[in-house]
Amino acid sequence: MKKLFTFAVMLLISITAFAQQALWGGSQIVSPEIHSNNTVTFRLKAPKAVKVELTGDFLPTQKIDTPRGTFDAPGMVELEENKEGVWEYTTPEPLASELYSYAFIVDGLRMNDPNNIMMIRDVASITSVFIIKGDKGDLYSVNDVPHGTVARRWYNSPTLKENRRITIYTPPGYENSNQSYPVFYLLHGSGGDEEAWIALGRTSQIMDNLIAQGKAKPMIVVMTNGHTQNNASPDETNRSYTPAMGGGPREAVASMEDSFGDVMKFIETNYRVKKGKANRAIAGLSMGGMHSANISAQYPNTFDYIGVFSAPPIAAMMGAALPSAEAESEFIPKLETQKKNGYQLYWIACGTTDFVYKGVIDSMQKMDEIGFDYTYRESGGGHTWDNWRIYLSEFAPMLFR
Amino acid sequence: MKKLFTFAVMLLISITAFAQQALWGGSQIVSPEIHSNNTVTFRLKAPKAVKVELTGDFLPTQKIDTPRGTFDAPGMVELEENKEGVWEYTTPEPLASELYSYAFIVDGLRMNDPNNIMMIRDVASITSVFIIKGDKGDLYSVNDVPHGTVARRWYNSPTLKENRRITIYTPPGYENSNQSYPVFYLLHGSGGDEEAWIALGRTSQIMDNLIAQGKAKPMIVVMTNGHTQNNASPDETNRSYTPAMGGGPREAVASMEDSFGDVMKFIETNYRVKKGKANRAIAGLSMGGMHSANISAQYPNTFDYIGVFSAPPIAAMMGAALPSAEAESEFIPKLETQKKNGYQLYWIACGTTDFVYKGVIDSMQKMDEIGFDYTYRESGGGHTWDNWRIYLSEFAPMLFR
Repeated sequence: MKKLFTFAVMLLISITAFAQQALWGGSQIVSPEIHSNNTVTFRLKAPKAVKVELTGDFLPTQKIDTPRGTFDAPGMVELEENKEGVWEYTTPEPLASELYSYAFIVDGLRMNDPNNIMMIRDVASITSVFIIKGDKGDLYSVNDVPHGTVARRWYNSPTLKENRRITIYTPPGYENSNQSYPVFYLLHGSGGDEEAWIALGRTSQIMDNLIAQGKAKPMIVVMTNGHTQNNASPDETNRSYTPAMGGGPREAVASMEDSFGDVMKFIETNYRVKKGKANRAIAGLSMGGMHSANISAQYPNTFDYIGVFSAPPIAAMMGAALPSAEAESEFIPKLETQKKNGYQLYWIACGTTDFVYKGVIDSMQKMDEIGFDYTYRESGGGHTWDNWRIYLSEFAPMLFR
Repeated sequence: MKKLFTFAVMLLISITAFAQQALWGGSQIVSPEIHSNNTVTFRLKAPKAVKVELTGDFLPTQKIDTPRGTFDAPGMVELEENKEGVWEYTTPEPLASELYSYAFIVDGLRMNDPNNIMMIRDVASITSVFIIKGDKGDLYSVNDVPHGTVARRWYNSPTLKENRRITIYTPPGYENSNQSYPVFYLLHGSGGDEEAWIALGRTSQIMDNLIAQGKAKPMIVVMTNGHTQNNASPDETNRSYTPAMGGGPREAVASMEDSFGDVMKFIETNYRVKKGKANRAIAGLSMGGMHSANISAQYPNTFDYIGVFSAPPIAAMMGAALPSAEAESEFIPKLETQKKNGYQLYWIACGTTDFVYKGVIDSMQKMDEIGFDYTYRESGGGHTWDNWRIYLSEFAPMLFR
């Protein structure tokens, strides 16, 4: 240990490395500081700033007027400066257990918290995050339980004529048994990629914890890249692009739906999986919910468990303003077939303030008309990751029973 | 595609999600913009800022005077503001092919580039990075070549009495063959963890590219967490700590050296590996170089290939100011045994401005005195990742020949 310490000191004396500024230059700022009562203090050293604000998804939303209308914007509060030029804000109330995102706004300029190494990318933004433990936060945290393996691999898609990146969670013990496992395909939304569910979705933590608690069966979770214009997330691809909703660097050769057979074939030939529809689940959020509804209809008798999170299962029924007759006439016959073939669980979840809410309600009415069975889970909130983590936490335990 | 587009538009209309600010709010700023001649433009929208500067490891270092002495600090330049409040700087000269790190300094406050999603953590700092392609930059980039798999797993260490996280690269084709592969253990420095070599080290890109070019043999690369006080990187552990040089959340039960047998046992029982010293390599940077020298001496006849990057192989000889007699008298007999047992390659690499340079030179003199064979690679530069990526790129091709 003494050797190590000496080495660290020598390293600190040498100021040549570029990226190590956080290690010297005076007192270390602690931010965010989560107090024992779950209030949280945020700090930023900015002696020259005139105004420092904080925005985060734990603050009450505020109405803002824009030329395009009035919107619910994330809340914003002002920090106070102390004598050392450190700006500070403490939440007046304890925060509920959750994973939260936040940013500072320094004289109008948005920035992450330089003292917090926990950052996660969501679409094109990287934001600072923290977890309040206790309830849901525990489920989203790394705990002292057996851990599964998360592998980033590349699979070949003959349909898309390329190799594509994929993220695969195998449950604890997978590598040291001869057992076969059921497979859960978990699809991201329009702003995501093969990293979305593992990063903001906390899939490996949620699965490790649910499995350790005996609440979910050990299963393989497969997280694809659902944008067939891309082959990988923006920092792991050979194509140059900036992530955006539904965007990509080129035209897609085929849709996610039409190329999904390649994914299943890859998984079933490369992993020890239990085959048959009883051992396959598919779910997704937003665009991935549409994909899940479409794929489960398009590949008949393939999935016994279907989850549609924050998306209208009848996919083109996005909102009241959009025509649905076309989609309906195309999709209803497929649902009829799916109904005839049978399945264990068709789970639809949506938040009451979600912009797709009406589309979801309308879809379910149409499904009722043809006697199509589903389970509906309505939550508060909107089209956000806090809901999607909850839906995953509730959906996974119902699988493969 | 039309469905997708409609969905994206609907999502943009709904401004409830917290983290998606980069997607609206006016014109998209492109930064960094790499021009065809490899000059680079950096941009930041900050209409209220008085002064915006840029620091990066592509700028010439500058001498700065501090109460603790005069140091080489990373270079800094000022940006110019245009009428829209966008600050801009273009490098006067094309940049050489490399992976670069940088940050903006807005009225004294350091921040990452909000328009660049490529960020990598180095110790406790997260910095914006970009790659200039062409030469080394191509080697550090994802190209259209077969890709290996990167798995994050947990292994049991009976010596440390815990499960620990580990990052493992298996070469393209590993999963679809019955072949066995040699193993390269690649160890990080004092500020790193099991993510360091894969992130700033670009190990998977370098290995994919070298293997595709026929320059390196397909091999398994094992990246451990060398801080035995920790069980995982700071955002993947159940222990709370802020990364720091040599720091950790608790006292270590045993050293990396003494617990390394657990790592080898895990790899050799969980992967299809070729056994025997001819099929084992170990190398590391800085503290990991010390570990590599120590481990290769402590486990006799175990490694045919040893790489010591930016570290004195006789480990306590950190610099001229430190006493070396003790370390020497302990370590020389071990080197004598290592010499007697034989090995294929003992590769020492160091930069001429590295603070460990004198320790490296002194170590080699002592090795010369006992006729201990090694190959010395001297580079320019210091104790930085640009050197460590080069050393990896040069060392890996020499292995298992």
